[in-house]
Amino acid sequence: MSNHVYKMVELVGSSPESSDDAIRSAIAKAGVTLKHIDWFEVLQTRGHIVDGAIAHWQVTVKVGFRVED
Amino acid sequence: MSNHVYKMVELVGSSPESSDDAIRSAIAKAGVTLKHIDWFEVLQTRGHIVDGAIAHWQVTVKVGFRVED
Amino acid sequence: MSNHVYKMVELVGSSPESSDDAIRSAIAKAGVTLKHIDWFEVLQTRGHIVDGAIAHWQVTVKVGFRVED
Amino acid sequence: MSNHVYKMVELVGSSPESSDDAIRSAIAKAGVTLKHIDWFEVLQTRGHIVDGAIAHWQVTVKVGFRVED
Amino acid sequence: MSNHVYKMVELVGSSPESSDDAIRSAIAKAGVTLKHIDWFEVLQTRGHIVDGAIAHWQVTVKVGFRVED
Amino acid sequence: MSNHVYKMVELVGSSPESSDDAIRSAIAKAGVTLKHIDWFEVLQTRGHIVDGAIAHWQVTVKVGFRVED
Amino acid sequence: MSNHVYKMVELVGSSPESSDDAIRSAIAKAGVTLKHIDWFEVLQTRGHIVDGAIAHWQVTVKVGFRVED
Amino acid sequence: MSNHVYKMVELVGSSPESSDDAIRSAIAKAGVTLKHIDWFEVLQTRGHIVDGAIAHWQVTVKVGFRVED
Amino acid sequence: MSNHVYKMVELVGSSPESSDDAIRSAIAKAGVTLKHIDWFEVLQTRGHIVDGAIAHWQVTVKVGFRVED
Amino acid sequence: MSNHVYKMVELVGSSPESSDDAIRSAIAKAGVTLKHIDWFEVLQTRGHIVDGAIAHWQVTVKVGFRVED
Amino acid sequence: MSNHVYKMVELVGSSPESSDDAIRSAIAKAGVTLKHIDWFEVLQTRGHIVDGAIAHWQVTVKVGFRVED
Amino acid sequence: MSNHVYKMVELVGSSPESSDDAIRSAIAKAGVTLKHIDWFEVLQTRGHIVDGAIAHWQVTVKVGFRVED
Repeated sequence: MSNHVYKMVELVGSSPESSDDAIRSAIAKAGVTLKHIDWFEVLQTRGHIVDGAIAHWQVTVKVGFRVED
Repeated sequence: MSNHVYKMVELVGSSPESSDDAIRSAIAKAGVTLKHIDWFEVLQTRGHIVDGAIAHWQVTVKVGFRVED
Repeated sequence: MSNHVYKMVELVGSSPESSDDAIRSAIAKAGVTLKHIDWFEVLQTRGHIVDGAIAHWQVTVKVGFRVED
Repeated sequence: MSNHVYKMVELVGSSPESSDDAIRSAIAKAGVTLKHIDWFEVLQTRGHIVDGAIAHWQVTVKVGFRVED
Repeated sequence: MSNHVYKMVELVGSSPESSDDAIRSAIAKAGVTLKHIDWFEVLQTRGHIVDGAIAHWQVTVKVGFRVED
Repeated sequence: MSNHVYKMVELVGSSPESSDDAIRSAIAKAGVTLKHIDWFEVLQTRGHIVDGAIAHWQVTVKVGFRVED
Repeated sequence: MSNHVYKMVELVGSSPESSDDAIRSAIAKAGVTLKHIDWFEVLQTRGHIVDGAIAHWQVTVKVGFRVED
Repeated sequence: MSNHVYKMVELVGSSPESSDDAIRSAIAKAGVTLKHIDWFEVLQTRGHIVDGAIAHWQVTVKVGFRVED
Repeated sequence: MSNHVYKMVELVGSSPESSDDAIRSAIAKAGVTLKHIDWFEVLQTRGHIVDGAIAHWQVTVKVGFRVED
Repeated sequence: MSNHVYKMVELVGSSPESSDDAIRSAIAKAGVTLKHIDWFEVLQTRGHIVDGAIAHWQVTVKVGFRVED
Repeated sequence: MSNHVYKMVELVGSSPESSDDAIRSAIAKAGVTLKHIDWFEVLQTRGHIVDGAIAHWQVTVKVGFRVED
Repeated sequence: MSNHVYKMVELVGSSPESSDDAIRSAIAKAGVTLKHIDWFEVLQTRGHIVDGAIAHWQVTVKVGFRVED
């Protein structure tokens, strides 16, 4: 991280597969509109349960990206 | 919450009436520019005091909305 | 609080009216099965938004009750 | 907030009516002895339950006031 | 989440395989005695180490279920 | 901790003698109805004061016990 | 706790004997100038070490007392 | 703060000079695209170390600005 | 810290110059009325922004002082 | 855990594969120099993003090991 | 504390007797290998339960010691 | 941060000059015995007050360094 300014946005990704996949889905969506994404931090892991099994993992992340000069 | 990605934004609503109204004012304002708003969470409740009485309730909320596919 | 032991249970009450009513609904439900309820503490306030307005206030509380001797 | 120094005191207000009223009761009491009260922050909301209903809302607040020059 | 009351219980699931499996084991056990389980939240991830490798992942979760009317 | 699932319950024990005794009283009470109690964690220590002295130590603990297979 | 307002002050008590005695010393000192002290909460336990042994236990507490009407 | 709604964004500013300068760099960048910036809060202070000295201070701040009516 | 009791008060100092100066202003003001001030701890750093620049740094500190025997 | 003393060290493990693998890499490295490692706790999960995908998962853990008698 | 640098290490002490003794055991062990130990802070109190009684108190502390010049 | 493992140590630096200098003093001391120091995070800022002025700023930091392969 050099002399730049970074911005962080908070996203919730979801996946029927795993907690890691829920994170990947949030980052993939962020990459559609944001450039220069540099890192993420996990804030919370939760999920929706249907018929006694996890239907969706839902992970809240903060994603940091460099603001263009 | 299905297989979507959600984004959260942090707002401070204010009201001279009550803490609940301060939350409603933040959500009403968010609805002007955001579609698919789904939930909110309260982060902090505070207020401004004038002449010994509460002039404005100020409540910080995070509002979650679905990012369009 | 005298020389007794207390137990705490965590509940989420909901209400279309107000945050206070969501708390009252949790306590009313707790009273159906628990005796000697003595106090509550608010852990989190959130809500569900439909069409840009709060459809349900959802408040998480811990309720403390005395365990019978 | 200009070039002043502020002091914060922690109070617990109570009310049989509502959580907002418990906050107002704490601020009203603070105003009896303190001048220049400027803002408050909610730290905790709890309450006393009697016969399955909320007898008193008890809200802990920090109140900030300007120290005289 | 409609006009219901929910209860949350705290469980620790374990698994020799992965952190996600430890969560699934807690939810599977909860489903043996609880109906209407709706969501979970992860509180802590830890594990037991034997001979320098993870013998058991141990994940603490809160599980929320609807209280019957 | 092997491949089991554990449940945690939150209790407040009290004692006129000491903070450690308040913890022991909570665990003793838990043992009346729960089997396989394995560990506890202290969440909060407080107390009731009468005539300027501590009348009761009140310690909130979480107690973990193995859920039977 | 009835319809009163309470104030909380933060104190650090110390003792060469034990953590409980450090709390008692803080409460005893508070009682010299404050009336109607009702409860305390422990915020932090630490201590000073001299020659490899604990010379003083230092416990930070908040003490709550009723403000006179 | 009057009857307005405020929005908060999270930024990381950096500076080779000092922690205060890292905050100023984040606020200066925010001012390029945002109007009505009113306050900031520091969330975290960290930095990058090269050859045993601080190469960049990196301070995470939340910046609050009034949403136009 | 010997066998004394200490009291902590919470202050907000402000300065147009720097975060450190805001702390110094709070401590200087505390010294006008309190004797035996011994240490401080920073709780929060924030500031007021005017025309895109920091008009006042505002730092909340707790100041500890020995209560006279 | 018997009558021993344990020490905890804080490590950040990384992996291009998964969050669980980042934890395993930290524990494997700890085992090179430490004996009697007994448990770990996850403190934070984050990662580095390159070209819109997770290049490295980075998980901070505390590892506990028994100090030899 | 003068112009020195201090280092902190995290330890878990245990005792069958009391929470205070668990702290003393951690400090005694630290003193075998560390010089200039100056203070400790309690992070967590927990314990192991066997046959419904506390078999070991386990207290996590951070111990601070001066780094030699 | 590539595929390495990092270790974090907690230090308290002090300085009569400023909070930033207290951080620099901790990092300079760490560099005497540790190689590959990569980043730091501030945990707490406090200080010692003598005759109403700050005699020493004391800042607790965590310093991260790469463990050699």
